[in-house]
Amino acid sequence: MKFFKNIKKSRSTSDEIFYTQIKKIIGFVPKNLDHYKRAFTHTSLQLKDKDGHPVNFERLEYLGDSMLGSIIAAYLFSEVPEANEGYLTQMRSKIVSREHLNELGKDLELLDYLDTRISKSKIGNNIHGNLFEALIGAIYLDRGYNYCEKFITKKVINAYVDIQKLEGKITSYKGVLIEWSQKIKRDLNFEIYEDSGNQNVKHFSVKLFVDNKVVSKGRATSKKRAEEMAAKRAYFVFQSEIEKLL
Amino acid sequence: MKFFKNIKKSRSTSDEIFYTQIKKIIGFVPKNLDHYKRAFTHTSLQLKDKDGHPVNFERLEYLGDSMLGSIIAAYLFSEVPEANEGYLTQMRSKIVSREHLNELGKDLELLDYLDTRISKSKIGNNIHGNLFEALIGAIYLDRGYNYCEKFITKKVINAYVDIQKLEGKITSYKGVLIEWSQKIKRDLNFEIYEDSGNQNVKHFSVKLFVDNKVVSKGRATSKKRAEEMAAKRAYFVFQSEIEKLL
Repeated sequence: MKFFKNIKKSRSTSDEIFYTQIKKIIGFVPKNLDHYKRAFTHTSLQLKDKDGHPVNFERLEYLGDSMLGSIIAAYLFSEVPEANEGYLTQMRSKIVSREHLNELGKDLELLDYLDTRISKSKIGNNIHGNLFEALIGAIYLDRGYNYCEKFITKKVINAYVDIQKLEGKITSYKGVLIEWSQKIKRDLNFEIYEDSGNQNVKHFSVKLFVDNKVVSKGRATSKKRAEEMAAKRAYFVFQSEIEKLL
Repeated sequence: MKFFKNIKKSRSTSDEIFYTQIKKIIGFVPKNLDHYKRAFTHTSLQLKDKDGHPVNFERLEYLGDSMLGSIIAAYLFSEVPEANEGYLTQMRSKIVSREHLNELGKDLELLDYLDTRISKSKIGNNIHGNLFEALIGAIYLDRGYNYCEKFITKKVINAYVDIQKLEGKITSYKGVLIEWSQKIKRDLNFEIYEDSGNQNVKHFSVKLFVDNKVVSKGRATSKKRAEEMAAKRAYFVFQSEIEKLL
C-alpha cells in the first residue's frame, strides 16, 4: 500500500514540476498538461494511445506551424499598412524561417524538456524549431487561438521581430552603435561570459558598457546573438541621439 | 439641400443593400462594412486612403489565405486523428487548391459584388478564389478568428470537404450511384437545366431521380459539379444500403 502511495505521489510531483515549467515558458496557466507532454514526446519512444495512434510531437508541429503562420500574417498586416502582399509574404518567411525558429526554441531551452529514447545530442539542430512549433500546437489545443496569439506576440514578436532589421535597413545594431560611439567619442565595451547554468545548450551573457556604465544586457546561445541583443536594447536607449547623428 | 439629401439617402440605401447581401453570404452580422467593401474593391479603381495607401482586396487576400490555412489545418488535425503530418499537409493542399477556391468563390457568386473599372469578363478565372480569400480576411478583421472559423466550417468544410473523396477512395459519387443502381436494378436519372437567374456566372440545377422520385438536388456553376453535388447527397441518403452492396 505504501509502495503505491509513493508511486502516486512521485507522479503527481513530476506533473507539478512540469506544470510550473510550462507555465513559466508560456506565460499563462496550462489547463490540460497532456497536450504539452505530447509536444515534448519524441518519436523514438514509439508511444501509442489506446486507439493505436502514435503519440509524439509531429502532428502538433504541423498544427503549430500553421497557427504561427497566420498569427504572424495578421501581425504584419496591421503593423505595416503600406506593405503589399509581396512584402508581407517575404517578411513572414524571414520571421518563420527554420533558422529563426531554431533560435527561438534554443532560447526557450525547450530541448531540456524533451522525452526521448535516443541521445539528445544525436537529434539534429531542427529539433529546437520543431519543439517550438509543437508547443504552439499544444497551446492552440489547450487554450485556443487567442492564447496562441498571446504567446507568439510575447515570445516571437516582441522579443525578436524587428521590422527595420528584417528589411535590411539595419543589419547590425552592434555596428550602428560602434559607429555612433566613435563619432561622439564615447567609450563602448562588450563584456561577454559563458552563462549556461545547468542547461543542455551553451548560453552566453553580455553586458554593454558606455563610458564604463552598464546600459544593457543580452543572453543567447551564441556570443554574436547575445551581443546583438544587448546592442539592440542599447540602440533603443540612445535612439534619438543616434538618429540625429547618423 | 434636397439634392444633398438625395445623395445621402441613396448612399445609405446602397449600404443597406450591401449589408444584407454580406450578411447572407457570411451567415452572421457584419459589424464594419468597410472591410467587406475593401474585399470587393479591384486594383483597377486605383483607390487610396487618406495616408496614400492603396485600397483594394490584395492585402486582405493574403490575410484570408493564411487564416484559411490554419483553420483547415486545425480541422484536419481533429478530424483525422490517425493521420501523420505528411497526410495532413497533402489533404490541406487539396482543400485550399486554387481550383477549389475558385469553385467556392463562384458558387458564392462573389464576382457579382466586385467593384472594378475593367470589365469583369476580362479578369482571369482566379478572381473567384481571390475574392473568397479576401472575404475571409475581411471577416477576420471585422469579427476575429472564431467567426472566420465559423464561416469556413459552414461554407468550405460542411459544403465541400469530403475526406473520403479527397483521399481518392471515392472519385465520383455519380459513378458509385450508377454502379449501385445497376446492381439493385433501380432506375437512376439526372434532370439538368440552366438556372442562372440574374447572375453573372452561369449556373445549373440538377434533380436526381431514383425510380421517378426526386431524392436530391444540386446547383453549381458546371453541369458536372451540380450532378456530383446531387449524387453526393443521394449517396448519404442510401449510404448503408450502398456500403452493404459495393
